[in-house]
Amino acid sequence: MITLTSDFGLVDPYTSEMKGVILTINPNAAIIDITHNVEKFNIRMGAFMLASAAPYFPKGTVHLAVVDPGVGTERRAILIQTKQGFFVGPDNGVLMLAAQNEGIEHVYELANPKFMLSKVSGTFHGRDIFAPAAAYLEKGVTPSEFGAEVTDVVIPEYANVKRKNGSLIGEVLHVDGFGNIITNITQVDLPRTKTVKVKLQNHTMQLAFTKTYAQAKSKEAVALVGSHGFLEIALNQGSASEKFGVKVGDEVEVAST
Amino acid sequence: MITLTSDFGLVDPYTSEMKGVILTINPNAAIIDITHNVEKFNIRMGAFMLASAAPYFPKGTVHLAVVDPGVGTERRAILIQTKQGFFVGPDNGVLMLAAQNEGIEHVYELANPKFMLSKVSGTFHGRDIFAPAAAYLEKGVTPSEFGAEVTDVVIPEYANVKRKNGSLIGEVLHVDGFGNIITNITQVDLPRTKTVKVKLQNHTMQLAFTKTYAQAKSKEAVALVGSHGFLEIALNQGSASEKFGVKVGDEVEVAST
Amino acid sequence: MITLTSDFGLVDPYTSEMKGVILTINPNAAIIDITHNVEKFNIRMGAFMLASAAPYFPKGTVHLAVVDPGVGTERRAILIQTKQGFFVGPDNGVLMLAAQNEGIEHVYELANPKFMLSKVSGTFHGRDIFAPAAAYLEKGVTPSEFGAEVTDVVIPEYANVKRKNGSLIGEVLHVDGFGNIITNITQVDLPRTKTVKVKLQNHTMQLAFTKTYAQAKSKEAVALVGSHGFLEIALNQGSASEKFGVKVGDEVEVAST
Repeated sequence: MITLTSDFGLVDPYTSEMKGVILTINPNAAIIDITHNVEKFNIRMGAFMLASAAPYFPKGTVHLAVVDPGVGTERRAILIQTKQGFFVGPDNGVLMLAAQNEGIEHVYELANPKFMLSKVSGTFHGRDIFAPAAAYLEKGVTPSEFGAEVTDVVIPEYANVKRKNGSLIGEVLHVDGFGNIITNITQVDLPRTKTVKVKLQNHTMQLAFTKTYAQAKSKEAVALVGSHGFLEIALNQGSASEKFGVKVGDEVEVAST
Repeated sequence: MITLTSDFGLVDPYTSEMKGVILTINPNAAIIDITHNVEKFNIRMGAFMLASAAPYFPKGTVHLAVVDPGVGTERRAILIQTKQGFFVGPDNGVLMLAAQNEGIEHVYELANPKFMLSKVSGTFHGRDIFAPAAAYLEKGVTPSEFGAEVTDVVIPEYANVKRKNGSLIGEVLHVDGFGNIITNITQVDLPRTKTVKVKLQNHTMQLAFTKTYAQAKSKEAVALVGSHGFLEIALNQGSASEKFGVKVGDEVEVAST
Repeated sequence: MITLTSDFGLVDPYTSEMKGVILTINPNAAIIDITHNVEKFNIRMGAFMLASAAPYFPKGTVHLAVVDPGVGTERRAILIQTKQGFFVGPDNGVLMLAAQNEGIEHVYELANPKFMLSKVSGTFHGRDIFAPAAAYLEKGVTPSEFGAEVTDVVIPEYANVKRKNGSLIGEVLHVDGFGNIITNITQVDLPRTKTVKVKLQNHTMQLAFTKTYAQAKSKEAVALVGSHGFLEIALNQGSASEKFGVKVGDEVEVAST
């Protein structure tokens, strides 16, 4: 199984070209779209979408993600092997949030022309390099055949929760349509307490952990781990991002109480 | 085969999470999207979309629909077995228009945790309850294993054409992009005459039945049974909904002439 | 394998109805969407999308395209057999750009009711005629069984590059999101020189051929054959269509220097 995530939108035929390439190499591949409506060049949003969806796919799935403002420059093309499956795309961070959640085992450069289209364009590596790589990988080619092991993979800020004086320092990954603030802090990082101290902009507050939005009183802020596995600050029947004046990229500090 | 209908849109990765869950349980399932662009929480529109498309799928298809404003409340999750196939979703009416067209045989509650994800969120039953149910059903699990039979399923107004003094009383289900007025009255309900008397708002008119829009004179109103199987009031080269000041939910009265 | 291209959009369930019809006839068909967001009734745009994507699909693929303003009128329904595969759709030009690129061998009318739905609507041949044709074709039905050979297929202007006094006379097929001007002139037509003389509106210029946009100096116009196989006039970091005041349908003249 191969999943696709991109910022190509659904007007142009680009995603279908990737599918055509995959199916020419590997006619039995099942291809599932995660989303192609990532905001143009928004690597962080692509990383979040992929990290949200990846846990629901079977072991061995190959995830291909193309949000690639640096296409045609020196940025590397990589393949990440995790405990659960594989990630294929540019080495710009878009794969890391999801790959780290699964436990990274190896990273390889996609450098072997044997596993690329014979004519590689300067503008569309999704079709010419990543799609063939995903197709061959799914077909059983050994990861190390694609190229040399990479030891200095790009780790973006948003895939990197820090610890400072017993606090977790993360950032806002995404604000959803309801104004819920989704952070890059995962269940594993979090203190196992019933309440947490959260600092957002110049607001410091003590929040109860709840399981659903509906468990909170109206307009009360709560902390919960959303269905995507990330810590979320939400306001029952209101917009938390508006109330706290928070936007994507802002710092979030979390400590046990 | 499993079809998906929802109001999740095509930006967020929610529909792909449902697909991942289905394919983890049942790797051989073929999954077809009906639409994910139902207006947010518009159950009637979801019901209409599903009822339009379902007749074109093979016998035995499992149709999963999630337009679910009541998720996390006491509303039931159900499975409907019809003469043609299966419907899975919330018990809020979204399945009924399509299921009634196929002839309902049994309705069961989805209550058996064996056929749910191990961790059921309060916010996303599409992924945690409905997707696994569809996958297991397609895999051959007997409908009655999912839960007790339901005898008081929710029948929404728009799935319920009434008869009064020889007239049919229905309602406007949908107004399409051309302004055609699509009602909930089906071929089976209709009198087998060449013309019908139709009452819409304060307009009473006698309309000829035609097979295509083009058979009508320009700007003339006609009645036809559209490709989705519902009675439609259309204006050749014009907007019937504008002319008659009609919107979704308005009453339609039809009688033989 | 069957691909779908249309102007149906992604709200209404029309494309899913075509898929249901295909899978009822041929449950093993793999169906890939090229795009359903062709501008309503824009045949040229549909033709361009299909021609861009088709080369990336395996030999034997059946491409179904429905941009069909003439549905219900006398326009023919056709099937084109090429050296690479098959094209199914209305005889209005939407298939020709892609089919010509592959080398047309035969064109047949879709006239045999045995390979249509039993009830053909006047408004939706995509579902009632083209989808069944694609499904039966993929299942192995011989092309000539669908109807008589057609010798006067519609060839639209934009599928017809002319030669005049050693120059190529083509037209602008598409202007992409970056303002790149994509013409209907293909690699095969072009002179094998390092520079070309291009006439666009009242601008005559000598352009270098480059492989990527990035090879040009900032704001410099260049010629390149894009990843879709058509000659493109681009401005590095700028909009060529704006600079030269060019829109879809405008004439382009190209000569060797």
